Amino acid sequence: MNGAESLVRTLLDEGVEVCFTNPGTSEMHFVAALDRIEGMRCVLGLFEGVVTGAADGYWRISQKPASTLLHLGPGLANGLANLHNAKKARSGIVNVIGEHGTAHIALNAPLTSDIEGVARPMSHWVHTIGSSMGVQASTRAAVQAAATPPGRIASLVLPADCAWNEVPAAQQASTGRAPRLARRAPDLASIEAAAAVLRSGEPTLLLLGGVACQEGALAMAGRIAAATGCELMSEFSMARIQRGAGRVNAPRIPYVPDAAMGVLKPFRNILMVGCTEPVSFFAYPDKPGRQSPPGSRLLQVAQPDHDLDGTLAALAEALGARGTAPKGVSALQRPALPDGPLTLEGIGQVIAALIPEQAIVVDESVTGGRALGGVTATAAPHDFLTSCGGAIGFGLPTAIGAAIAAPDRKVLVLEGDGSAMYTIQSLWTMAREGLDITVLIFANRAYRILQGEFAGVGAGTPGPRANHMLNLDNPTMDFVGMARSMGVESGRATDLGSLARELSRGLASKGPYLVEAVL
Amino acid sequence: MNGAESLVRTLLDEGVEVCFTNPGTSEMHFVAALDRIEGMRCVLGLFEGVVTGAADGYWRISQKPASTLLHLGPGLANGLANLHNAKKARSGIVNVIGEHGTAHIALNAPLTSDIEGVARPMSHWVHTIGSSMGVQASTRAAVQAAATPPGRIASLVLPADCAWNEVPAAQQASTGRAPRLARRAPDLASIEAAAAVLRSGEPTLLLLGGVACQEGALAMAGRIAAATGCELMSEFSMARIQRGAGRVNAPRIPYVPDAAMGVLKPFRNILMVGCTEPVSFFAYPDKPGRQSPPGSRLLQVAQPDHDLDGTLAALAEALGARGTAPKGVSALQRPALPDGPLTLEGIGQVIAALIPEQAIVVDESVTGGRALGGVTATAAPHDFLTSCGGAIGFGLPTAIGAAIAAPDRKVLVLEGDGSAMYTIQSLWTMAREGLDITVLIFANRAYRILQGEFAGVGAGTPGPRANHMLNLDNPTMDFVGMARSMGVESGRATDLGSLARELSRGLASKGPYLVEAVL
Repeated sequence: MNGAESLVRTLLDEGVEVCFTNPGTSEMHFVAALDRIEGMRCVLGLFEGVVTGAADGYWRISQKPASTLLHLGPGLANGLANLHNAKKARSGIVNVIGEHGTAHIALNAPLTSDIEGVARPMSHWVHTIGSSMGVQASTRAAVQAAATPPGRIASLVLPADCAWNEVPAAQQASTGRAPRLARRAPDLASIEAAAAVLRSGEPTLLLLGGVACQEGALAMAGRIAAATGCELMSEFSMARIQRGAGRVNAPRIPYVPDAAMGVLKPFRNILMVGCTEPVSFFAYPDKPGRQSPPGSRLLQVAQPDHDLDGTLAALAEALGARGTAPKGVSALQRPALPDGPLTLEGIGQVIAALIPEQAIVVDESVTGGRALGGVTATAAPHDFLTSCGGAIGFGLPTAIGAAIAAPDRKVLVLEGDGSAMYTIQSLWTMAREGLDITVLIFANRAYRILQGEFAGVGAGTPGPRANHMLNLDNPTMDFVGMARSMGVESGRATDLGSLARELSRGLASKGPYLVEAVL
Repeated sequence: MNGAESLVRTLLDEGVEVCFTNPGTSEMHFVAALDRIEGMRCVLGLFEGVVTGAADGYWRISQKPASTLLHLGPGLANGLANLHNAKKARSGIVNVIGEHGTAHIALNAPLTSDIEGVARPMSHWVHTIGSSMGVQASTRAAVQAAATPPGRIASLVLPADCAWNEVPAAQQASTGRAPRLARRAPDLASIEAAAAVLRSGEPTLLLLGGVACQEGALAMAGRIAAATGCELMSEFSMARIQRGAGRVNAPRIPYVPDAAMGVLKPFRNILMVGCTEPVSFFAYPDKPGRQSPPGSRLLQVAQPDHDLDGTLAALAEALGARGTAPKGVSALQRPALPDGPLTLEGIGQVIAALIPEQAIVVDESVTGGRALGGVTATAAPHDFLTSCGGAIGFGLPTAIGAAIAAPDRKVLVLEGDGSAMYTIQSLWTMAREGLDITVLIFANRAYRILQGEFAGVGAGTPGPRANHMLNLDNPTMDFVGMARSMGVESGRATDLGSLARELSRGLASKGPYLVEAVL
């Protein structure tokens, strides 16, 4: 057995069953090992941002780390933006990054770079393997790091000689899985403090993040709200929330700072469970970055790595609310399919009407999807995933990973035209793997959000040269043709009627389909 | 004047006239400044790898730094791979990277990351601006760093408040350009040592890199070769070489290590001018990384930052060769247009026959272009640019920058299908800016180079699972349709006759055109 085989076997032993790859020469022994070892599903991406984004989506749905296979410093660099998103989403990923053979590094060949330096800003854990003998232990440590709650980015650098050198069979001891760290036990002092706040009757927000946005935790939060009269919300950047009919609704804090401060203004207390303090995405002149009202009390009930189900259960218990019926459970209310021109409200109604049961909705629609929140709260039950790091190009790759983690669920991606173009190569992987993904492109032919932000930061109104940097209408992009060029069937919607037809067609198919909605 | 205006004005004062951009919210004040200040050509890329690669190409042709405008850590991260290529090509670039407002950084908003940490592995110079008052001095220092011979990557981080805060007019002193460091004077001791080697009559290679591959330096090297009998070659990774009819031919060292070691084997001495020791791109089991023959003498006559024209002139002078007619001047020899199936040899002949005078040829054809070297040496005079860092996705963006640096020259990109997909968004920028670029895609529908490397690293023959990671034929990509979807006219070639027709059509047009050659 060589080091590459040791790596693949160890990943499998540790429960890592998927590898998203864009390999090069230094990774060929890993690729060769796949032929000799059963059980690792390898998914090729044509660009590394596809690879790392897919690993993020896979974790969000399966709560298990996938591996990635990346080609030296530049290959890792291409994957960094979606690793940033994954890190902020608290996803667990094991990156395997090929490196030159150890003796070759000093020769400063063209691809030589400081791989650990590239990895560090977007990783929690970085390690370079020293010899083929060390592959097993390093790989176990990497998976253990990735699986550490709430989820971490582990980057393992594999020099080529460590991949091709032999590992005696006796050295590859199959010792079972490395122990997994559990989530931290609920913090009883914080829970008691939160209970006291909730008993006070003061206007209080219970703000949820991370796995506190999954169905069971939301139901428990709903019981607390019913018993105490507190309100529920979820953080703006949302790794995964379970919403729709039958779920307790915890609306997202809005993106625009004035709107966010508006919804937070009534609260005297903000109790945070699995999330951090609400702050604005960007800084704006003469506006505070913190969104909570001045004088309000922020109480961290549980950090993202705490046992959040246990925390909410203990809080409910302290309040005598465990038997209470949850407040805010959404009843199914599918809107009628509207007709007429493509307005954002109308698009929201079409989506709400058509979301399939248990669909996974990945939202990178940026401005296009801002009207979705209310109307989809009463749609069929679905999971909703957003970017957590703000790095554009998250949507299409994340959908790939989600689809692979849940092959029997439909994935619906809501994607801006500008943002789609950062990782458009994703479409090819969707076609190759026959993934059950419907992509809706909001083609407003501009970086529309920046046209708003331009005024928001006090820069006034864009003139012709600024607009040249913000418009995407010269030339217009033909997403229908682009999808077909990568093997994905597609259609165009120019009004709400054709949108409903095209979206229905995509959702009814068992494979990728792209709809371009021309706004 | 605010800090953003100060930045744009200072860049212009320092001779930086082009900005390749993919801006976000934190860069809106920079974009706004463009409306108020004349003279900065801003070119939008839909992905940051396009932006940084274009800046690399611009430097290679103009020998002047362009600026880039990138959105925080993730935007910079997306541009890193082509910054790696630019760094290895010794290109000068000024990256301007937006950052949150200074007070916002501590709030750990979604886009917060260690920007300096991201920049460092691919930069020579990194600095974060501390206040709007410091913008001018920091910007001057950045341009000075970028222009330091042979060319450097300078990364300047601009917090949003430093962009929007005011700079009193008196503070913005227009003091003329920051002084530029000159190339180091020729090293006379090394030149004398080299002359002694050349006089010895031993088999000697004069190996050229960097600006020693431009026409005048090559002619001087040809005189030295004529007078001494030494051979001329150029390094494999080539930022820019001037070749074709009328130029002294210095063939590239081959990529494949056995071939490289074969051509270097006869030499007792290797004299290096503006390049480094020849080493293999990758490590291979049981093969040396160094390609020079054991026992040969390596002599560094001039480093890349020396005055290479002066070095070669002094060497010729020492050898009494300044008046000698150069050896190895190529005579124009356009091959007849061949017919028949698309072989690599035939494609080379078609390209050699059709290269326009003074074209700029950007080569990322990987395996597809290996038959080009010989036949194009006697084509019309042209510049030839290759990747120097081995990060894939270099070709299309570099062509953008080259075309903007030399609007009256035709740019021809030779691009693999696999490599095209890393930065395919480049096509849109070519269409938007109406750039005079012809793209030839070598569509072999595989990572063909990896199929060779697989055996090269001793991994044997790829089995079905390995081949699934190396083939791109399921689904096949339609580059003709993909180009049209981004506004670029295109056509397909299936034999040498249609290739000649399509390529001629592209070269005759005054704008972007893509030809997909289906191998």
